[in-house]
Amino acid sequence: MTVVNGYEQSDREQDLDILNLPSLEAEAKKIIPTGGFGYIEGGSEDNWTLAENTKAFEHAQIVPKALSDMEDPDLSTSIFGIDLKTPVMMAPTAAQGLAHSRGEAATAEGLAAVGGLMAQSTYSSTSIADTAAAGNGAPQFFQLYMSKDWDFNYSLLDEAKKAGIKAIILTVDATVDGYREADIINNFQFPIPMANLTKFSEGDGKGKGIAEIYASAAQKISGADVKRIADYTDLPVIVKGIESPEDALRAIDAGASGVYVSNHGGRQLNGGPASFDVLPSIARAVNHRVPIIFDSGVRRGSHVFKALASGADLVAFGRPTIYGLALGGAKGVASVYKHINHELEITMQLAGTKTVDDIKSAPLTHFSYND
Amino acid sequence: MTVVNGYEQSDREQDLDILNLPSLEAEAKKIIPTGGFGYIEGGSEDNWTLAENTKAFEHAQIVPKALSDMEDPDLSTSIFGIDLKTPVMMAPTAAQGLAHSRGEAATAEGLAAVGGLMAQSTYSSTSIADTAAAGNGAPQFFQLYMSKDWDFNYSLLDEAKKAGIKAIILTVDATVDGYREADIINNFQFPIPMANLTKFSEGDGKGKGIAEIYASAAQKISGADVKRIADYTDLPVIVKGIESPEDALRAIDAGASGVYVSNHGGRQLNGGPASFDVLPSIARAVNHRVPIIFDSGVRRGSHVFKALASGADLVAFGRPTIYGLALGGAKGVASVYKHINHELEITMQLAGTKTVDDIKSAPLTHFSYND
Amino acid sequence: MTVVNGYEQSDREQDLDILNLPSLEAEAKKIIPTGGFGYIEGGSEDNWTLAENTKAFEHAQIVPKALSDMEDPDLSTSIFGIDLKTPVMMAPTAAQGLAHSRGEAATAEGLAAVGGLMAQSTYSSTSIADTAAAGNGAPQFFQLYMSKDWDFNYSLLDEAKKAGIKAIILTVDATVDGYREADIINNFQFPIPMANLTKFSEGDGKGKGIAEIYASAAQKISGADVKRIADYTDLPVIVKGIESPEDALRAIDAGASGVYVSNHGGRQLNGGPASFDVLPSIARAVNHRVPIIFDSGVRRGSHVFKALASGADLVAFGRPTIYGLALGGAKGVASVYKHINHELEITMQLAGTKTVDDIKSAPLTHFSYND
Amino acid sequence: MTVVNGYEQSDREQDLDILNLPSLEAEAKKIIPTGGFGYIEGGSEDNWTLAENTKAFEHAQIVPKALSDMEDPDLSTSIFGIDLKTPVMMAPTAAQGLAHSRGEAATAEGLAAVGGLMAQSTYSSTSIADTAAAGNGAPQFFQLYMSKDWDFNYSLLDEAKKAGIKAIILTVDATVDGYREADIINNFQFPIPMANLTKFSEGDGKGKGIAEIYASAAQKISGADVKRIADYTDLPVIVKGIESPEDALRAIDAGASGVYVSNHGGRQLNGGPASFDVLPSIARAVNHRVPIIFDSGVRRGSHVFKALASGADLVAFGRPTIYGLALGGAKGVASVYKHINHELEITMQLAGTKTVDDIKSAPLTHFSYND
Repeated sequence: MTVVNGYEQSDREQDLDILNLPSLEAEAKKIIPTGGFGYIEGGSEDNWTLAENTKAFEHAQIVPKALSDMEDPDLSTSIFGIDLKTPVMMAPTAAQGLAHSRGEAATAEGLAAVGGLMAQSTYSSTSIADTAAAGNGAPQFFQLYMSKDWDFNYSLLDEAKKAGIKAIILTVDATVDGYREADIINNFQFPIPMANLTKFSEGDGKGKGIAEIYASAAQKISGADVKRIADYTDLPVIVKGIESPEDALRAIDAGASGVYVSNHGGRQLNGGPASFDVLPSIARAVNHRVPIIFDSGVRRGSHVFKALASGADLVAFGRPTIYGLALGGAKGVASVYKHINHELEITMQLAGTKTVDDIKSAPLTHFSYND
Repeated sequence: MTVVNGYEQSDREQDLDILNLPSLEAEAKKIIPTGGFGYIEGGSEDNWTLAENTKAFEHAQIVPKALSDMEDPDLSTSIFGIDLKTPVMMAPTAAQGLAHSRGEAATAEGLAAVGGLMAQSTYSSTSIADTAAAGNGAPQFFQLYMSKDWDFNYSLLDEAKKAGIKAIILTVDATVDGYREADIINNFQFPIPMANLTKFSEGDGKGKGIAEIYASAAQKISGADVKRIADYTDLPVIVKGIESPEDALRAIDAGASGVYVSNHGGRQLNGGPASFDVLPSIARAVNHRVPIIFDSGVRRGSHVFKALASGADLVAFGRPTIYGLALGGAKGVASVYKHINHELEITMQLAGTKTVDDIKSAPLTHFSYND
Repeated sequence: MTVVNGYEQSDREQDLDILNLPSLEAEAKKIIPTGGFGYIEGGSEDNWTLAENTKAFEHAQIVPKALSDMEDPDLSTSIFGIDLKTPVMMAPTAAQGLAHSRGEAATAEGLAAVGGLMAQSTYSSTSIADTAAAGNGAPQFFQLYMSKDWDFNYSLLDEAKKAGIKAIILTVDATVDGYREADIINNFQFPIPMANLTKFSEGDGKGKGIAEIYASAAQKISGADVKRIADYTDLPVIVKGIESPEDALRAIDAGASGVYVSNHGGRQLNGGPASFDVLPSIARAVNHRVPIIFDSGVRRGSHVFKALASGADLVAFGRPTIYGLALGGAKGVASVYKHINHELEITMQLAGTKTVDDIKSAPLTHFSYND
Repeated sequence: MTVVNGYEQSDREQDLDILNLPSLEAEAKKIIPTGGFGYIEGGSEDNWTLAENTKAFEHAQIVPKALSDMEDPDLSTSIFGIDLKTPVMMAPTAAQGLAHSRGEAATAEGLAAVGGLMAQSTYSSTSIADTAAAGNGAPQFFQLYMSKDWDFNYSLLDEAKKAGIKAIILTVDATVDGYREADIINNFQFPIPMANLTKFSEGDGKGKGIAEIYASAAQKISGADVKRIADYTDLPVIVKGIESPEDALRAIDAGASGVYVSNHGGRQLNGGPASFDVLPSIARAVNHRVPIIFDSGVRRGSHVFKALASGADLVAFGRPTIYGLALGGAKGVASVYKHINHELEITMQLAGTKTVDDIKSAPLTHFSYND
C-alpha cells in the first residue's frame, strides 16, 4: 500500500482468478478508499441511466447457431489500420491513481500484454509519455477534455503525438460535471495530482472536486473544434459521447474519423437512454463510413457480442478495468481482458461466429422481457 | 417549535444543504407531526397513481447533445407577460401551517428570493394579503377551490385582486375529496385555521377533516364557471386538473387562459394515468394557444426538462417545497428551488439546450424499460 | 364462536370500519381456521392467474374529467328488469359456513341491506330456501354446478324456482377441480355439510376434499345443457366462466341470457389470462345482445369502474365478501358493499360520470406500466 | 447412500408425494452433494437465459374453453410411429450418477413405468446397454455428443442400435462448454466415470471438469454430420439445440428427421432468447414436415400445454427428473411424470382439449404482463 496525501493506494501486482467482471466490484470496494471508490463507481442523480446501461443488453438476445461448421473463434480486429488482438478496449478513464499507485502506466502495461487498445484520459494520474512508455509500443489513443485554454490543448496534443498516440478521442458529453451524488456525499476531492495538469496555470487537480476540474474545461464545443484538432494533429479524431444519429452525422460532417457511442457510463446526463438502446440507430446513420466505438454498461462477453452485432467496431469499459487494476495492477488488468475475451470466445463459438466480422452480421432477437 | 391547538409546527429558518429532493421526505417526516405528514404525503386509495407519476418520467429519455456549441444555460422564462427567473414554480398547496408556523408567507418569501412563481391555495393557513405581502412584489397566482357560495368566491377573488394576484388557478379535479387512506388511518383533522375561511359562515376549517372541508366546495363545476370567474376578475384563469385533450379543449372553449395538467399529485382519482403520460397528447391538442402548467411527480431537474420537452411551459411541485419549508422556512424553500434549478442547468448544458425554449423543442426517446 | 365437527366458525355480527377491501384478508385470516382460509384464498398451481387478475387493472387507466357539470353520482342499475341499488354484486361462492356460522344466510341478509344482488352457490352451506328467506325479498340468482345426475339438477332448479330465484348462473369452467396447492398442503376436507347436497345419494360433502366434490359434477357440459336448463326453468340462464369471444358467442347461441366473464378467481385454469384483459374483446363480440357480469380480481372502486367501462354490466367479487362475513356477519357483508360503493362514488364523481351508463361509455387510457 | 470416490450418491427408492416440480429442487439440494447439485442446477454466465426460460411461459396464456362437451382427456401420442402414453419425455441429461447410485438405469425404469420416452445422454453414468435393459422394452432415444474421433462415434452408434435405440438425438449447441459459474465456484470435477467413455482413449471422464470433457467433443459440426449419422445408423436423427427458423431449416435440409428446440436449459449460450419465445417461429418454418421436441424451462403442466400449443410435438425436461431420481430412484422418476401428467390433464380438461392434437390447435393469448 502506498499512502499519498493520506490516500491509500493499492500497489498489488498479481494475476486475478476472475469468476466474472461484476463480482470484481465488491472486491475492489474493500481496498479502494471510500471517496475514490465513490468517484469510480458512481453515476449521476439517482443512477437510473447507469443501471439501464447494463439492463438494456437484455433488450436484445443472441441467436445460438447450430451446424455452423466452425471452431477456434478469432478475436483479432483492427481500427484505422492498427491490428488488435481483441475488439475489447480500455475506455478512457480519469485518475487511475485512485485505484493503484502505478495508475495508468499499469493499465497500459496490462492492455499491451493482451493486445488490447489503451485509451489515456486527459485527467490521468500519470503523464502521457509515461503511460505510453509503459505500453511498450502497443497502440494507444489519447482522450482530450478540451480546455478553454488552447495553449493547454495544443501542448497536450503535442505531447500525445510525441508519445506515438494513434488517435485523439474528443470527449463532448462532459461540458459540465454530471450531478454525481456519491462525490457530494463523500465530499470527494482528488487526493492525487493529475500529471497532465501539473505544468499548467490551472493547477494539477490535487485537492479539487470534480466540479472545479471541469470548470477549466470548455463548455462550448462545436464541430469547428473537431476540425481544429484534426488539422493540428493530423491524427484521426474520434468524437466521444454520441447518443443520437443526428450527433453522429454532425461529428462526421465536422471531420470526425470515428464515432464513440457512450453516455459516459451514466456519469453525465441522467435520464438519458441506455447507450446500448441508441446504438442500432446510430450505426444505421453512420453506415460504415467511420468506425464506431461503444461503451457504457458492458460487463459480459455476451454484452460485447451484442454491441458488435448492433453496429460497434470496438467495445470498451472502464470500471471493471479499474477494479482489476486495484486488485492486481498490470497483471490484474490483463486478467480482466483475458476473462472477457474468454467469455466472448465461448459466445462466438456458440453463436457460430468465427470472426469479429461474423459477429457484426449476426442476427439478434428482440423479445420483450419483464424483469 | 410553535404549538397550536396541540399541533407542533416547525419554526426553523435556515438554508438547506440538499442532496436531492426525494431525500427531503425522510427528513421532513421527522419533524412534521404524523397527521400533518400523512396529509401532505398521502395519495388516494393504494397510491398507484401517486407512484406512477414519478415512475412515468422513465417512459421518456433525454437525448444528450454533442457539439452543441453552447454554455451558460438560461432558466428565465415568462407567462402572461410576467418574467420569471425559472420555469419551476410552486404548485398551489393547502394548509402549509402544517409544515411551518409561518405557513404560506414563508413559502412566498422563499419563491420570491429565487424569482420563482408562488401560487396560493384557497385553503392556505395564511391570508391572501399576508402571503402576497411576504412575496414583496414578486408575482403570485391564486388557486380557487370554488365554493357553492358565490359570495364567498367573489370575496376571495376581490381579495386576490386587491393583493395584486396575477392569475386565478381554478381547480376542477377536486369536486369530492379523493379517498386518502393516510388521513383515515390518522383520523386527521386540520388543527390550524385556514385564513381565507375565517370570515365565512362555513367555519375556518379547524378541527375538520378533509371531507368536511370539501363538502362546502362546489361539486358541480362547468365551463360557465370559468367564464364567470374570468369576467368577474378580468384576470387570466387557468384550469387545473386537466388530464385529457378533450378537457383541455373544453377549458379553452370556456375561456381559460391557461391549462394546468395535473392529477393533484395522485391525491384525487387513483387508477388514472400518470400526469406525465398524458402531457404530450394534451400539448398537441392545445397547440400553443394557451400556456400549459404541469405538475404531479416532479422531483428531479431531469423531470422538469422532460415535462418542458413534452409540452409544458411551467413545471410545478408541492410536496418537496413543503418539506423544504418544514426544514428551513423561507430559506429552506429557496434552497429547494436553487437545487432543482441547479439540476436543471446541468441537464440543459448536457442536452445542448441554452434556453427554456430550446428545451421545448428538444427531442426525447421512448425506449421501453422494464423496472 | 361455533364449533362444528371441530371446525371453529365465526359468529360475529357487527358493522366493520373498513379502510379498504385488500386489508380485510389479513384480519380474516386471524379468525378463519387454516384449512378454510386456504380454501377461500387459494388459487391454482402457482397462483399466477390469481395475481394477474388484480394487477391487470393497471393495464387501463381512468381518465379524470374536468368541468363535468355533475354531482351526486347514482349507482342504481338493473339486470333482466330487476332494479339494483349498486352494480356491485356477490359472486357465487361455495361453503360460506367456513367463514361464519350463519353462512350464506348472513351474506344474503347483508346484500339485501345494501340493495345488491346475491348469488347463491350450489355448494352452499345453507339451503336455497333458507338463503332466499334471509334475503327478505331482495333479488337473488342461483349458481348451478351441474351434476351428472339430472334428477339432482332438476331438484335444485325446482327448489330455486320455488324460492323465487330470478336467474340461473351455470358454471362451466369447473369441469374438474383446479390444481389448488393450498388445499393439498392443508389436506383440506370440508368440515361442514353442504345443505343442497344433503338429500342426495352422493352425500353432503362433509369430510370430502374438493376433488371428491367435483367428481360428482358433470365434466362434459355443452350448449345443449344451457338450453335444457333454460327450457326447464323458464328463467334467464347466465353462463359463467367465459374467457373468450368465441365462448361468449357459443353461450349466446346456446340460449344464454347472460354472459359471466370470470376465471373463477384464478382457482381453475392457471396460466390463463387475467379476466380483465379479456373483457373488452368479449364485450365487443357480445355487442349488448345480453348483459355481461364480470368477476376475478376486483378489490377497489376503481376496479369496478374499469370493468364497467370495459363492457361489464354488473361486477362481482367473492373473497372480500367472505372476509367481511367472517369479521362481521350480515353487517360485515353490508359494510363491504357500502365501502366499495363509497370508493366507486368518489371515482364516478372525479371521472365525471353521473350514472352507471355514463361509466359504460367513459374512456380509458392504456399506457404501459412496468411494475 | 453409496459413496464412490468420496461422492455420496443417493440410493433411495420410493414413490414421491409431489406438490409441484419446482418444490423438488430444494429437497434434492439437501441430498445431492454441492458439486453435483451445482452441475445439475447451474446455467451459464449470470443465468439470465436460464431464468427467462421459465418466465417466458408467461408471455402466452391458455384460453379456458367453456361448453366444450368433453371429458377424460387423453395424453397418448406418438413420434416416428412409436406410441407413447404421454407427450412429456425425458431430456437427455448427463451424469445421472451424480443424483443416484443407479443413474440412468433408474431413470429409464421410471420412464418405462409411465409410458414416457427415455433419452440417454452420451455422458451417461451407466452404459447404453444397461440403461436400455432397465427400460424393459420401452422406447428410448440416444443423444450423441459427437466426438472428433469417428471411431468413437461409430462405436456408440453401433452400441445404440444393438440396444434397440429408436432414434439419435444429435446435440449441436454444445461445441464448447457454456460458461457455468457454479462449476467454477465448486471447482467441479466428475467424481463418477461415464460408462460410454470407459473404453476409449480419452478416458472415462472421472476427475475431469466439464471443459475437459467437452474438449474431446467436436467443435466443428455441420449438416454433413447429420447425414453421416443418418446414413450410418439408418435411424431418425433429431438435431438438438435449434433456436431459430434458419437453423431448423438447415437441419431438415441436412437430413434431420426431427428438430429439437432447446437452449440446453440455459447452460450453454447465455444472453440468448428463452426457448419458448422462439418456438412459434420455428414451428411455422418447420410446418409439420418433421416432429418438434421442445425443452428448456418446463416445470408445470401448463408449460407443457403452452409448448404443445406453440408447435411442439413432445415436451421434455431434465432437472425435475433428476431431482425425482435423487429423491426416489426409479419410483421417484415415475412420480415426477405422473405429477406433470396430472397437472396437464387438468389443464386439458379446463381448456376443452380432449387429445394432444387438440392442444396443438388450441389458441393462446399474448397479453403483456409486467412482473
